Amino acid sequence: MNITAEVLVIARKAKKAAAVLANSDSAVKTRAIVEAALAIEKNAAKILAANKTDMENAGKSGVSGALLDRLELNESRIKSMAEGLRSVAAQTDPVGKILAEWERPNGLKIARVSVPLGVIGVIYESRPNVTADAAGLCIKSGNAAILRCGSESFESSSAIMECLCSGLKNAGLPEDAVQLIPTRDRAAVGEMLKLDAYIDIIVPRGGKELIRRVMAESRIPVIRHLDGNCHTYIHESADLAKAVRVTVNAKMRRTGICGATESLLLDEKIAGKFLPAIADELTKLGCEIRGDEKSCLLDKRIIPATEDDWDTEYLDAIISVKLVKNLSEAITHINRHGSHHTDAIIAEDAKAAAEFLNKIDSAIVMHNASTQFADGGEFGMGAEIGISTGKLHARGPVGAEQLTTYKYVVWGNGQVRN
Amino acid sequence: MNITAEVLVIARKAKKAAAVLANSDSAVKTRAIVEAALAIEKNAAKILAANKTDMENAGKSGVSGALLDRLELNESRIKSMAEGLRSVAAQTDPVGKILAEWERPNGLKIARVSVPLGVIGVIYESRPNVTADAAGLCIKSGNAAILRCGSESFESSSAIMECLCSGLKNAGLPEDAVQLIPTRDRAAVGEMLKLDAYIDIIVPRGGKELIRRVMAESRIPVIRHLDGNCHTYIHESADLAKAVRVTVNAKMRRTGICGATESLLLDEKIAGKFLPAIADELTKLGCEIRGDEKSCLLDKRIIPATEDDWDTEYLDAIISVKLVKNLSEAITHINRHGSHHTDAIIAEDAKAAAEFLNKIDSAIVMHNASTQFADGGEFGMGAEIGISTGKLHARGPVGAEQLTTYKYVVWGNGQVRN
Repeated sequence: MNITAEVLVIARKAKKAAAVLANSDSAVKTRAIVEAALAIEKNAAKILAANKTDMENAGKSGVSGALLDRLELNESRIKSMAEGLRSVAAQTDPVGKILAEWERPNGLKIARVSVPLGVIGVIYESRPNVTADAAGLCIKSGNAAILRCGSESFESSSAIMECLCSGLKNAGLPEDAVQLIPTRDRAAVGEMLKLDAYIDIIVPRGGKELIRRVMAESRIPVIRHLDGNCHTYIHESADLAKAVRVTVNAKMRRTGICGATESLLLDEKIAGKFLPAIADELTKLGCEIRGDEKSCLLDKRIIPATEDDWDTEYLDAIISVKLVKNLSEAITHINRHGSHHTDAIIAEDAKAAAEFLNKIDSAIVMHNASTQFADGGEFGMGAEIGISTGKLHARGPVGAEQLTTYKYVVWGNGQVRN
Repeated sequence: MNITAEVLVIARKAKKAAAVLANSDSAVKTRAIVEAALAIEKNAAKILAANKTDMENAGKSGVSGALLDRLELNESRIKSMAEGLRSVAAQTDPVGKILAEWERPNGLKIARVSVPLGVIGVIYESRPNVTADAAGLCIKSGNAAILRCGSESFESSSAIMECLCSGLKNAGLPEDAVQLIPTRDRAAVGEMLKLDAYIDIIVPRGGKELIRRVMAESRIPVIRHLDGNCHTYIHESADLAKAVRVTVNAKMRRTGICGATESLLLDEKIAGKFLPAIADELTKLGCEIRGDEKSCLLDKRIIPATEDDWDTEYLDAIISVKLVKNLSEAITHINRHGSHHTDAIIAEDAKAAAEFLNKIDSAIVMHNASTQFADGGEFGMGAEIGISTGKLHARGPVGAEQLTTYKYVVWGNGQVRN
């Protein structure tokens, strides 16, 4: 069978399974996920062996350190994969909720009811744990999933997939509800992106190149996760200790995640005191600081920034710093240069904070908290399939609830329209 | 100025106005809409004169009857345009609603709050009233609107636009919040579809050709409204009088709207009695009936249908008829051949109805009611900018509430992530 036909067969099976899953009881879906978690723990040795093969192959093809690290599984990573599934299983069922209901003067009763999207295509790169996370979220939300893993993690993902299928089977659900594209051939991605008659939504998870390709090629709507050029803004009313602690965490806790702060804005009225204090801590942790002219004058450790720095997501131990005249300048700068992901204000003045939270056009806005909290797990969603920086359908962390849509149900007793 | 530059200037102004509108009070937005309605009534003569010019130009270019009818305005149509605006003004403000809120164990408070989408591009054909409907819904939902009317209705739409701008002005809102593309040049549509940095969503309203073009070309997410191949299914438990009344209304009240029933399914156990009764009424009203083999045997007035008929949206006085063995066959047929718009079951058996409502994968599912109720106004939404047959973001009638998105607001007191 050629790839076109192979992917089509998978998509057809997924659509059939989706119809069953959409009408399955909460308890059954929960059981499938919990059983999958158990199977992953029981089959840890098998998964680790598969992962060893992946790691060896990747090493031979000269795959680099950071990618190898994302690819690697160990006992503790397998344990957190199983825990992630249990945490998704423990969430409230997002399907079948009455989102609104009302009655019309003619006696028609109308309800808006949450339903699954149908079939979700997830295209991801080397991390094998996405296989479990994505499948768990899709099952919870009553959707069938077609997973396309990165070629490096094919053996690991296949081993994890077996556990997911045994979970589905043990709960009496169709095993086709979660399928892995069974080939490393890159052409399979292109085939998936054409099947808008079968796949309702595509979620790409990975680097910008992958996401841009998917957005350019897909005939299917995409929940996209682009840049995370996040800001922390320190208002003149900020508390010094809080500002230092939160900023340093927001930048340096993990520099490679999308919620890491990339740019620091300081009110120029307090910068003389705050900037050196923050620079002390950042420098200790090895962070490079690139600043505008005014901040370079305030602190010798700061090297000059260029215009490009304001638009750059470093994903590294680098931060850009800019002094602003006031709240309004901070808001304008963030809405212009940010990526509408996550932005925070550090302030004791509640009115200033409210204006910031209101006027910043981002998926997540924060007051006196680290931007590193931008995460489905930290939000209490169990897990996330990604963070949407688009405005349509889902914005911010995409959990099981965001993988649903709704339908209108209308009850009458023979009404006709005039 | 060339068209590229002209459209870009409009988009930039819209984005600026959107930031103001997003933070405007409900009362101010309501006032702008009510003032616009008043202005439309006061300037009726001017609008009618502009419409006369459009009608004359259209006549000269050989525009046909149905299109001319959609283009034509008269006193009563102007009155309903103003009433439509008042009805949108009277809706609850969809912006600033707390959709969910919770607290995390670390003390972070999180809320999901509804916010406007930003800038909405509406691309429509000859009906001038869309200018008022779309602008009213966008203002209500705090969005700026860029309207691109059909070239035939350019003079009428421009006259209506003046009234909308005076409404905005009288309420103290930026007039750029609603702009009409000031050229008949078709290239302007292509320019709009490229501006994903300024326009957040595109709503095409018109024929399939327009919608397909927009979907193919747009870099901006599209809320699409494709076919309305709607079904009415008569279950064996149906009441005869109800079935006849509802089916005839669903097909014949207005045949050209998307919620018109195009296909009738009957349980074969009751078809012998129900089909002739329904055919009597449909035939009286001049409806052509195309049926499968079994229905042709039952009634001589029925002519044979081809396989294509099951997938056809006639938008005309034609209906296709098929006998089915049971509920399950009806559901399978509709999910396969329907367009996921609106489908109804006529039944006295509540359990059968519930199964139908549950398993039909359409934006609107109905029990004992005419599919012609598939309409934002009939749903109590004041007006609609269209009916979405896609599953993402909005499904079914798109009113002011569906023109919003949300953001997460996180309140902390200095929390950092472990």
